[in-house]
Amino acid sequence: MQFSIDTGSLLQASQIMSRAVSSKTTIPALTGIYFECINENTLLLKATDLEIGIEHTVSAKVEETGSMVVPAKYLLDILRKLPNTNITLTKKLDENTLQINYRESHVNLNTFPVDQFSFLPGINQDRSLTIKSDILATMIKKISISFSHDISRPVLNGALFELTDNMLRFVSSDTYRLSLIETVLDKVSEEEFMPIIIPSKALIELTRLIDKDETIKIIIDNKQAQFETNNLKIGVRLIEGKFPSYKNVIPTEYSTRIIADTKDLLLSIERATVISSDESFNKTCTIKLEFMDNTIYINSYSPSIGQLHDKLLINKEGEDISISFNGNYLVDILKIIDTEKVIIELNGNLSPGIIKPFGSTINYLSLILPVRG
Amino acid sequence: MQFSIDTGSLLQASQIMSRAVSSKTTIPALTGIYFECINENTLLLKATDLEIGIEHTVSAKVEETGSMVVPAKYLLDILRKLPNTNITLTKKLDENTLQINYRESHVNLNTFPVDQFSFLPGINQDRSLTIKSDILATMIKKISISFSHDISRPVLNGALFELTDNMLRFVSSDTYRLSLIETVLDKVSEEEFMPIIIPSKALIELTRLIDKDETIKIIIDNKQAQFETNNLKIGVRLIEGKFPSYKNVIPTEYSTRIIADTKDLLLSIERATVISSDESFNKTCTIKLEFMDNTIYINSYSPSIGQLHDKLLINKEGEDISISFNGNYLVDILKIIDTEKVIIELNGNLSPGIIKPFGSTINYLSLILPVRG
Repeated sequence: MQFSIDTGSLLQASQIMSRAVSSKTTIPALTGIYFECINENTLLLKATDLEIGIEHTVSAKVEETGSMVVPAKYLLDILRKLPNTNITLTKKLDENTLQINYRESHVNLNTFPVDQFSFLPGINQDRSLTIKSDILATMIKKISISFSHDISRPVLNGALFELTDNMLRFVSSDTYRLSLIETVLDKVSEEEFMPIIIPSKALIELTRLIDKDETIKIIIDNKQAQFETNNLKIGVRLIEGKFPSYKNVIPTEYSTRIIADTKDLLLSIERATVISSDESFNKTCTIKLEFMDNTIYINSYSPSIGQLHDKLLINKEGEDISISFNGNYLVDILKIIDTEKVIIELNGNLSPGIIKPFGSTINYLSLILPVRG
Repeated sequence: MQFSIDTGSLLQASQIMSRAVSSKTTIPALTGIYFECINENTLLLKATDLEIGIEHTVSAKVEETGSMVVPAKYLLDILRKLPNTNITLTKKLDENTLQINYRESHVNLNTFPVDQFSFLPGINQDRSLTIKSDILATMIKKISISFSHDISRPVLNGALFELTDNMLRFVSSDTYRLSLIETVLDKVSEEEFMPIIIPSKALIELTRLIDKDETIKIIIDNKQAQFETNNLKIGVRLIEGKFPSYKNVIPTEYSTRIIADTKDLLLSIERATVISSDESFNKTCTIKLEFMDNTIYINSYSPSIGQLHDKLLINKEGEDISISFNGNYLVDILKIIDTEKVIIELNGNLSPGIIKPFGSTINYLSLILPVRG
């Protein structure tokens, strides 16, 4: 195979591909990027760690068709240091060497046998929907705080993704917290689909791969989800199993409801977590919140560090209450609230609290379990 | 003790102090910052790891004199999260708690007993000189590439610092490379001093602590060097011993001398090091340079990665020569050359090469030993 391309375009494409390249694998060829000249102007690139797979088409001047698998690390390292000029890549059929010619010089890189490369199976086009990339990225970011990393419960290592009544919903939970976000789709999709679980790692890679301002087509079958943009197809192997029922967990009423300034509350909780950060005394980084009249009193204590007594003015409806939470969890939640004010709803000091933005155009909430103070 | 100050000023001062605070120490109080109210408007801060010590004066409104030692980590973490307002710090004489009052809230931090804090001994004012901070920082940066980290030869874990005929000179060497930089002092100093060895770690901290545009006074006795700015005194314990004689090592003639474009040569060597980076094949990351007529041919090879044949046009005087170097060392050296063109001087393929800027206002050079190709 032989093709010409400018260094910058090939570097950019290879950087995208590197997001799916395997780092730990027993199949050496999966540490490579697969290249195929599919017509005289187009190169198809593939990379996968068998959990996520990326296909990417790039313009190039193809002189001779063919395919090859090039070690991603060395290719990227070389491309970063090449002059930004037109370069020619040649791989002869009977050799395992890629030759990159630039100016009057060249680099040869060893390649992997093409038949040792594998890829995700094709998707059975089943259900599809479209969504704006910025909305999809926001939804993933806001539920990412409660992804579980406990490998003993694989269904929690991803997010529930479901569509009901044209409402698209992501839910994630690490059993201490639960995040839910939903959006109304512009176009009515053909029909509803069974809820699926998309791995958290793939969702996070996805937010890095999609541009701000494009439309993403999502195709789903019972094994895979595929996210398509203009020149990129990102396939993701789904997590099998049933996501825990979340609807009954989220309280629909409250006995106390407050509205606070988000930034002031975040800073105050962050101060409190500094004081309660002695893990030998307090593994859960407990901080105590007392909601009395129109004030929150925030208290934390470690014998080795010191203590904090903070107060903040709030608006409150309902009962006075004293409740304790893991300060680190509260900080995570308050950091993703992007409205000036935040709502906290409580039902006594043993039931979960609900934290959500005040006056947001996007519907999302975080649920957090209290700790025994 | 009691004083008032705004959060921002105290945070900035504490961040400076944290550069000298001990991270690994058997003396817990050295993980703290020492505070002393020295008059009604001035606070003196001290921190040390007993290798480097910082004294810093800061303006504050002092209500009551006294001193305390506050854990640096928790103080910084709290200050970063406090509102940017005027705060009051109080430590009662008979308690070990610092209380920080802000708005209507407060944090208490446990402190260390003041008598457990220690500091570098005072300097016997012996010799002194002054130098512009930007020149000092440049000198340190350029010799930092050849600091040795081999603890079995302590004298190489620092830089030689000497003054002869009003010429100030830094030299460092890791035995594979040697860097030398010198500058003429504006003011003639009182007299010469014996060469000293300043620890590399302290020199690097120093470049972070000094501002761009100030005059540094350097005071030296036979145990310590002290670097003074307007409101900062940075004391450094010297390395004892004798720095190896460097003068006879640096060749004064050459049999080959080339002038190359610095950036092109750097990129070419960087590409070559990607190819020769297989440590299992080649521990010294060897790359081969052939200087023939007005061309350098740059070659590198690893059986597992591939090979590179690169060429660059140069100006050459003297003999053609083929010589091999550690590519990583060449990259380090070429990165600190800040002139458009670079000079390389060689004396056969077994003698060290000299690399230096072409047309620089500062006099510096790096010496590098060849490897057997």
